[in-house]
Amino acid sequence: MIVPFDKLKEECGVVAVHAHPEASKMAYLGLHALQHRGQESAGIASADGVKIRTHKQMGLVVEIFTEEVLAKLSGTQAIGHTRYSTAGDSALLNAQPIMVDCNKGAMALAHNGNLVNAGELRHKLESEGSIFQTSSDTEVIVHLIALSKEKTLEDAIADALRRIEGAFSLVIMTLDRIFAVRDPRGFRPLSMGVIKASETVRKDSVVFASETTAFDLIGAEYQRDVKPGELIVVEPEGIRSRFYAPAQKMSACVFEQVYFSRPDSVVFGRSVATSREMMGRQLARETGVEADIVVAVPDSGVPAAIGYAAESGIPFRQALIRSHYIGRTFIEPAQRLRDFGVKLKLNTVKSMLEGRRVVLIDDSIVRGTTSKKIVRMIRQAGATEVHMRISCPPTVASCYYGVDTPRRKELIAANKTIEEIRDFIGADTLSYLSLGGMKTACGENGDVNYCDACFTRNYPTQLFDVAEIQPMSATSSD
Amino acid sequence: MIVPFDKLKEECGVVAVHAHPEASKMAYLGLHALQHRGQESAGIASADGVKIRTHKQMGLVVEIFTEEVLAKLSGTQAIGHTRYSTAGDSALLNAQPIMVDCNKGAMALAHNGNLVNAGELRHKLESEGSIFQTSSDTEVIVHLIALSKEKTLEDAIADALRRIEGAFSLVIMTLDRIFAVRDPRGFRPLSMGVIKASETVRKDSVVFASETTAFDLIGAEYQRDVKPGELIVVEPEGIRSRFYAPAQKMSACVFEQVYFSRPDSVVFGRSVATSREMMGRQLARETGVEADIVVAVPDSGVPAAIGYAAESGIPFRQALIRSHYIGRTFIEPAQRLRDFGVKLKLNTVKSMLEGRRVVLIDDSIVRGTTSKKIVRMIRQAGATEVHMRISCPPTVASCYYGVDTPRRKELIAANKTIEEIRDFIGADTLSYLSLGGMKTACGENGDVNYCDACFTRNYPTQLFDVAEIQPMSATSSD
Amino acid sequence: MIVPFDKLKEECGVVAVHAHPEASKMAYLGLHALQHRGQESAGIASADGVKIRTHKQMGLVVEIFTEEVLAKLSGTQAIGHTRYSTAGDSALLNAQPIMVDCNKGAMALAHNGNLVNAGELRHKLESEGSIFQTSSDTEVIVHLIALSKEKTLEDAIADALRRIEGAFSLVIMTLDRIFAVRDPRGFRPLSMGVIKASETVRKDSVVFASETTAFDLIGAEYQRDVKPGELIVVEPEGIRSRFYAPAQKMSACVFEQVYFSRPDSVVFGRSVATSREMMGRQLARETGVEADIVVAVPDSGVPAAIGYAAESGIPFRQALIRSHYIGRTFIEPAQRLRDFGVKLKLNTVKSMLEGRRVVLIDDSIVRGTTSKKIVRMIRQAGATEVHMRISCPPTVASCYYGVDTPRRKELIAANKTIEEIRDFIGADTLSYLSLGGMKTACGENGDVNYCDACFTRNYPTQLFDVAEIQPMSATSSD
Amino acid sequence: MIVPFDKLKEECGVVAVHAHPEASKMAYLGLHALQHRGQESAGIASADGVKIRTHKQMGLVVEIFTEEVLAKLSGTQAIGHTRYSTAGDSALLNAQPIMVDCNKGAMALAHNGNLVNAGELRHKLESEGSIFQTSSDTEVIVHLIALSKEKTLEDAIADALRRIEGAFSLVIMTLDRIFAVRDPRGFRPLSMGVIKASETVRKDSVVFASETTAFDLIGAEYQRDVKPGELIVVEPEGIRSRFYAPAQKMSACVFEQVYFSRPDSVVFGRSVATSREMMGRQLARETGVEADIVVAVPDSGVPAAIGYAAESGIPFRQALIRSHYIGRTFIEPAQRLRDFGVKLKLNTVKSMLEGRRVVLIDDSIVRGTTSKKIVRMIRQAGATEVHMRISCPPTVASCYYGVDTPRRKELIAANKTIEEIRDFIGADTLSYLSLGGMKTACGENGDVNYCDACFTRNYPTQLFDVAEIQPMSATSSD
Repeated sequence: MIVPFDKLKEECGVVAVHAHPEASKMAYLGLHALQHRGQESAGIASADGVKIRTHKQMGLVVEIFTEEVLAKLSGTQAIGHTRYSTAGDSALLNAQPIMVDCNKGAMALAHNGNLVNAGELRHKLESEGSIFQTSSDTEVIVHLIALSKEKTLEDAIADALRRIEGAFSLVIMTLDRIFAVRDPRGFRPLSMGVIKASETVRKDSVVFASETTAFDLIGAEYQRDVKPGELIVVEPEGIRSRFYAPAQKMSACVFEQVYFSRPDSVVFGRSVATSREMMGRQLARETGVEADIVVAVPDSGVPAAIGYAAESGIPFRQALIRSHYIGRTFIEPAQRLRDFGVKLKLNTVKSMLEGRRVVLIDDSIVRGTTSKKIVRMIRQAGATEVHMRISCPPTVASCYYGVDTPRRKELIAANKTIEEIRDFIGADTLSYLSLGGMKTACGENGDVNYCDACFTRNYPTQLFDVAEIQPMSATSSD
Repeated sequence: MIVPFDKLKEECGVVAVHAHPEASKMAYLGLHALQHRGQESAGIASADGVKIRTHKQMGLVVEIFTEEVLAKLSGTQAIGHTRYSTAGDSALLNAQPIMVDCNKGAMALAHNGNLVNAGELRHKLESEGSIFQTSSDTEVIVHLIALSKEKTLEDAIADALRRIEGAFSLVIMTLDRIFAVRDPRGFRPLSMGVIKASETVRKDSVVFASETTAFDLIGAEYQRDVKPGELIVVEPEGIRSRFYAPAQKMSACVFEQVYFSRPDSVVFGRSVATSREMMGRQLARETGVEADIVVAVPDSGVPAAIGYAAESGIPFRQALIRSHYIGRTFIEPAQRLRDFGVKLKLNTVKSMLEGRRVVLIDDSIVRGTTSKKIVRMIRQAGATEVHMRISCPPTVASCYYGVDTPRRKELIAANKTIEEIRDFIGADTLSYLSLGGMKTACGENGDVNYCDACFTRNYPTQLFDVAEIQPMSATSSD
Repeated sequence: MIVPFDKLKEECGVVAVHAHPEASKMAYLGLHALQHRGQESAGIASADGVKIRTHKQMGLVVEIFTEEVLAKLSGTQAIGHTRYSTAGDSALLNAQPIMVDCNKGAMALAHNGNLVNAGELRHKLESEGSIFQTSSDTEVIVHLIALSKEKTLEDAIADALRRIEGAFSLVIMTLDRIFAVRDPRGFRPLSMGVIKASETVRKDSVVFASETTAFDLIGAEYQRDVKPGELIVVEPEGIRSRFYAPAQKMSACVFEQVYFSRPDSVVFGRSVATSREMMGRQLARETGVEADIVVAVPDSGVPAAIGYAAESGIPFRQALIRSHYIGRTFIEPAQRLRDFGVKLKLNTVKSMLEGRRVVLIDDSIVRGTTSKKIVRMIRQAGATEVHMRISCPPTVASCYYGVDTPRRKELIAANKTIEEIRDFIGADTLSYLSLGGMKTACGENGDVNYCDACFTRNYPTQLFDVAEIQPMSATSSD
Repeated sequence: MIVPFDKLKEECGVVAVHAHPEASKMAYLGLHALQHRGQESAGIASADGVKIRTHKQMGLVVEIFTEEVLAKLSGTQAIGHTRYSTAGDSALLNAQPIMVDCNKGAMALAHNGNLVNAGELRHKLESEGSIFQTSSDTEVIVHLIALSKEKTLEDAIADALRRIEGAFSLVIMTLDRIFAVRDPRGFRPLSMGVIKASETVRKDSVVFASETTAFDLIGAEYQRDVKPGELIVVEPEGIRSRFYAPAQKMSACVFEQVYFSRPDSVVFGRSVATSREMMGRQLARETGVEADIVVAVPDSGVPAAIGYAAESGIPFRQALIRSHYIGRTFIEPAQRLRDFGVKLKLNTVKSMLEGRRVVLIDDSIVRGTTSKKIVRMIRQAGATEVHMRISCPPTVASCYYGVDTPRRKELIAANKTIEEIRDFIGADTLSYLSLGGMKTACGENGDVNYCDACFTRNYPTQLFDVAEIQPMSATSSD
């Protein structure tokens, strides 16, 4: 039995390290800090000025990168990638970084996001004789770079980036340079930091990561975000920046604030923990209810629940306990145990729930199946009322920008009214945070504008070939 | 680099299942729920009326027990054990259950606790010709049973139990019976539950576990605790109980309430979550301080922190975030990163800490090294004051009843005053919960009396050969 | 699909090293050279004067003993064991060396052979309160030593050895001594050698091994065999020898010459290669037939086939080729391939067999199933006649002295006449070597007398409890 | 310690199966039979008409392909590849089959051989925008196919093949077709066979393999060799053949007869066992010497030794015994053991060598280091004379057609006279087979002509960019 939880899944995290004597170890630690962005496979490519080496494997960062593996990844530059991918296409072949030789030299790429015109481009490139070895849309980018008429690699990258559409936070490494890129709408985060020179490291080292929590672990200082439409070049001579395309109206993924990013990260210039507390507070203001205790679905519901409790004055209690020894699969008895899958991860504290009216806070409901089981467990522990509160609006549409959303027919909010959902999960009341409330809580303003397509179906890009998000290739690999 | 945290370690959890068609799977799930009581090795023995089979391995329960392994553990009875052991003696050989053939038949044992006269008994048994294959004190018990002059196994067990001294919650399985035992002082918990008959399972199934959280996962109802000095026999004909020795003044391990047990368990008849909230509340009453936020050292400090916040009115904030992707070892860069070991597990949320006066709640300080790093991280995140509050008294003495305590010279509170500890960890103030406050919070009363030896050096048993807690054998094994 | 071949199986090999700076590495190499004597599990115990350490695991010697594992097995003494065991009882628990603490101190034992009164002794020991943790008869020996009234360990060992009956070549290690023992009939081989002092190793190092091929690999010189009934003690002060029991009429296992031992070993004072060549020559003299080529069933039939060819003048040809990439299990297509199991290991050379009359030499026929397939393959390759010749007499009885023989009803020669066997395997003619011919070829004389029970049912010991060779315990372990 | 033997290494084996219900299992068995052609990595690609799936891994065939892995490789077509590669470039990334999507559809390729113009072509392709993800020259072929102006895949393959130069036996699989190709000089073998229809398999199944031994295991009948310059197409409608280029003077690799192929294979229309026996006989005629016994260096020297013995009348003896439990690495004692690396694999039979004059037969001498140790071991075993005889001429030049030869400066015969080599290895006499003698023994005639470049430096192709055989890429991967 595989133990899935009813959550949307981020598809990737990326990291890059320039000019550091232990570049691949720093990339390894950075990836570890980004592990929550993808637990399926991970990879690191390192460069020593002469050669690029890579190691990619299915599994967790701590399992994949042993001393022996890291020792082979020599050199003072490294990029890394951690990945989650959709079930049918779960393949080492598609793991990143992708490493290639082409007329612009050797390079490695790591990509967080999803292109919406990858299928169209791939078709065109194949018709002109390009060969694809993976079903990853990232391979399209490499072909565009190789085929660009531009003379320099930097211009060729800029040229290629102008041809792709969708979400991409990219790091590209050559033998001695690192390029960091964000798409013109800035869907996915990408931050720049610096490891300051010290007694043992003679000069500053520039680093990039999907989230700032990676900087905290490796002792880097956050400098600024890569801007939408920006191409930063870190080379031996220094750092340069250019805009390969005009920035468009920003479409930062609000789900990074809601669920994906770690609360200790600063994403799109805003503390995730603050956003979540504010979502909880706003939820209390919008959907207040008389109750005895506020309980979070751990771990992701905790910050909003604390906010809700603070705003409402109803005490926060840790009445759902999460197990942290969960493996990837679990053996289930033939004789079915009720709510088994959820109970492996969560248990109730009866002494806290008995006879209590409970406000139950979660960050989202995707299919509703897990919520139904949790509500039932809480009632069985003796709660007299369960008021479910969700710290974002109903998820009604798929994401084409790098999030693994189930098909529409599986999204409960795309198919049922809120009352029907309430009935399905068995809560006494159910309320969601409003769209406006969420955006305010996440600090939307002149500088930061959020993509809300999964709540509104207002996609900020044209959707060229979104059916292409399904595996587009006749090949697969383990 | 191994990633230790500065905690005392429980040495074991046990589980037993009688008369269930999927006995070994139930034992497996029960052990999974008790995983926090020992992550080093685990084992299950099953009996089918004709043969006892066992599988023991180093590692976590979910890693060890595959479908294939469980399929071999056939039969309708099973007992299981999960174990942590001291570093120098970390051995598969000492993993449990222990399985033996003797004149009383085949049997398997699983033991939570530690004997204080094991060395003396072992010496005597060896001098009379007994052979020891492990350095575990549990093997002593088996020899006493085999050598007992009593005619029946039950009487022989009772006879053997009267000869041993110390802490023991034991489950013993023969081809068709299960025995469950607690020592006369009741140091370690052991509860009895029942899986009710259903359409697929024709009759009730009696189960035992160190903590009730195991019952929640396998769908068993908690019945009662095994009593100090009690020997319960579950056999095809039914359940019988006898007292092999008069109960003595109860000496339940208070650290089960403070740290070892899961908050969702009921231990010694009391909800652990309630005890911890009450410890936090009492701590606020005893050691109140003016501050802006209450922050827990996760995960174990959270319940007390919530209690402290509730009592003091200072808001609880999740300003330390814990990573749950920690493996057993970690690769450290040559270039040292400050507080690296702690940062792998914990990170601060700067937006919450900046400019704030912080009450930091933890359940204990053992060596003080981790606390020092956490206090430093919180200050670096911008906190203006850090007031450390510990939800139990200073730990000044070693435990000889089944807890892995470091040597006295490593216990910071055995060697420094509170002011010196405060200075060492770098906090602005430091306070511990009083002994009386802790006991009240943990519900000490006429029925439940706690052992407080680690705080007071008042050991409830004579210490025959505590030096013997060190490996007493000239043999070791991997 | 598991790939069994129709052979009897030796159950063990043992090795011991005294006073060598790299004792466990020498034991590891010695075990590697004895790998053919048991491929199921292997173990090494080392002693450094203070502690005995052991590592045992399922698998091949090269897989089990890594640098890391060997580094832990510190000390200047080591003993090792490699084991094959019967299918139903294949258990890590029964792997050796066995390590125990008893009133005579800590010791480790490794045993090659099988006791015929183990069941009786075990029953008696259990009735007196001894505990058995394995189903191995070796554990009986340890209990006898511990319970002996003799004052010194050496006398206790001698006392214990006098009580056991059957086949045993034993090495026993204490913190600073090694004991080497052979049973009074000398069923199994055990040789003593010496690694001479060198620039890097200051003094001579005494070693023991089941076969001399182990000495060749570790650079030891063969000194002499341990004699039947002899107990050799190697201690810091030097080597002593005593006879704990009078030698009886020697009953050396003739199958060591026929099949078990490596041809490059000298066993019972005789070159195995010479014995096999002589068996082949004698076979040609006794059972000559007109033919074009002599072909061996590789690898074990090769030496006899070369002898047969030399004696008969019929040319030897390598017309059966053996694959050496065989794993433990094999995936078989659903659509059955004819003779698949044999073809994975053997293939014919058609150009050599086509139109030829073939003398096919093998060392034994156990069930006959493999022989049948090989004869068929040879015919399909175009051979016009197949004359099967076996370099020992028909195997008609089980062995109780350390060889894994199938039950009598599976032994083809116990159930069919030679003509019926010939018909079953499909050969044109079939002949076996005579008993006298075999013994002469193996050099039987005044000093060396062979056990021929598997050919004659004349068992040299009384068979107290041979049914006990089946698993005698109600416990098993993985 | 890695255990290398002083041998040239074949770089690959390929297999293909068309229209079989268990195609991937048949490919797996075929690869197992070709395991000797490459033990580093193996892979299988299967096609089910809709999708191509592949699994590639480092390791042996039996280790890589479990039931679970094979179950995923569904479909009625499969191709497989087993690979050895040079040390510095040992990479999963370069494992085959290579699978790609291009404008001609999805396809997978497996290649045995080496191109001599791969570097030149790669440089040109990169300059036109092609991207290379591996350092394998096989990737060049795929790009040429994708970029071909021809309309059909078949014509594009033919077009691509005309552009490459060197050695290539190729199998290419699309969703429903298999293409099998040999280069115009026929360097490497490739045979076609058929698995006949049966009750369970309704129609004949066409198969290809590097050696016929693969057919024997899977129950296929050998039909004929793919001819030099031929392109065979197996499609649902049947089999077609065309010659994409005129056959040139055949340059079959004579080392396939000398050492690479298994003796039970028929290669280039000739039984390898026959070739080797004839080489041994010819060696006896050309280099006869007075001696007592003929001894082979096992296993590869055995067939020639038997031939030598037959021709000379000097008896063949198995006086060197080979161990078959060798793992990939070995732990060596700090205290060096003489000839340790060789002794792990070989041991002498003293009783056969003592006082004897020995003719020692091996198939080749590459560096001479192993020969030196073997000669020394034979002398230490008591041989009075050692006459080394090699069943091919001195190896004086590197191969650029798919064999891993050491650099010239490491090839002893490229740097020393025969007398100097004799002196180095310590033999009494040393003789090699003559070039003419070898070719006659291997059946050279009007139809079969052998490449002898490694003996003569007469390379049959122009060597465009042989330096390019060294890793040509700035990328590498594990």
